[in-house]
Amino acid sequence: MKIVSEQKETDPHQNIVEVAERLFSQIGFQKTTVADIARELRMSPANVYRFFSAKAEINEAVGRRLLTETEASLEAISTQPGSASEKLRSAIAALEKANAQRFVANRKLHELLETAFNENWPIVQDHSKKLNKVLTNIISEGNSAGEFHVSDCELAAILVRSACIRFCHPRLMVECAQEPEPTLDQMVDFCLVALG
Amino acid sequence: MKIVSEQKETDPHQNIVEVAERLFSQIGFQKTTVADIARELRMSPANVYRFFSAKAEINEAVGRRLLTETEASLEAISTQPGSASEKLRSAIAALEKANAQRFVANRKLHELLETAFNENWPIVQDHSKKLNKVLTNIISEGNSAGEFHVSDCELAAILVRSACIRFCHPRLMVECAQEPEPTLDQMVDFCLVALG
Repeated sequence: MKIVSEQKETDPHQNIVEVAERLFSQIGFQKTTVADIARELRMSPANVYRFFSAKAEINEAVGRRLLTETEASLEAISTQPGSASEKLRSAIAALEKANAQRFVANRKLHELLETAFNENWPIVQDHSKKLNKVLTNIISEGNSAGEFHVSDCELAAILVRSACIRFCHPRLMVECAQEPEPTLDQMVDFCLVALG
Repeated sequence: MKIVSEQKETDPHQNIVEVAERLFSQIGFQKTTVADIARELRMSPANVYRFFSAKAEINEAVGRRLLTETEASLEAISTQPGSASEKLRSAIAALEKANAQRFVANRKLHELLETAFNENWPIVQDHSKKLNKVLTNIISEGNSAGEFHVSDCELAAILVRSACIRFCHPRLMVECAQEPEPTLDQMVDFCLVALG
């Protein structure tokens, strides 16, 4: 009880998001109400509304947290040693892995992201921009190293991400699960030929 | 009345599918019941069930009809004169056009296909195979003409279709509508480089 109040004092915004994520993963984001979240935090719903003007904002905040983790893993890959081709392959593999792991480990959180992509929430648009930026950097590095010969690295990043969308999109990943081909390596190889 | 009975005698299966498609496009496939379809055809629901063992089968039959139209337009493109590159571009453009037109002209039929793709109905798997076959033929022709240098045409067809999925998938098309890039031409150019 004491710990909860201390946390509340330190960052109520973050506490709300953390509790919401836990409830979302247990009962699903659509069934979780602001009253449920408030109850867990021993605060009034009105107090939750001081930090989030609507339940939809809490959904977005939880989604953003999940997508930020994926973005961080891609940024880590982009600064590792290795060729640009290897980094590009690792980046797409990391996107697939993040999706696949969430789907297996926590289907209800996966559903939140499916809805976010389906309804094109602002967090998804923001996520796209961040991924494009990381991929642009990797491709630009490959250009400098003579691995790639691309005139517009930003466009090339968008093309690679579009080409690999079946591995990176929470809904498509599920739809394509029963189609063995193309494998991620086949698709990345195809892109590498186009970039080279 | 006479015409309806004559049609019924000639091909009741087809009559049911045609009436179902009309009702689906008016009130949506989920709200249309077998009783509605039977009523339009002045027959009993039991009679409809002589031809389709479940409503789901009628949904599939209507979906198949829509997808068959698209397949026919792609097959027509593949036998036209022109280079393989041009045919490949026209084929992807035809897939996009079929989706986009249906979305604008008849949102409720578009929703039927969205659900079919979302739930990976057998008609969608069958459609994929047919599209892969047409694209394989085009790529193989490009190989013979020296336009492409592809070792496995079937795999290349699958890769091109995956790379272009944002233009050919009823749900993704809607999700990606607000992202101007990549354009269809940019994506096809990217694929043509990879095939060349």
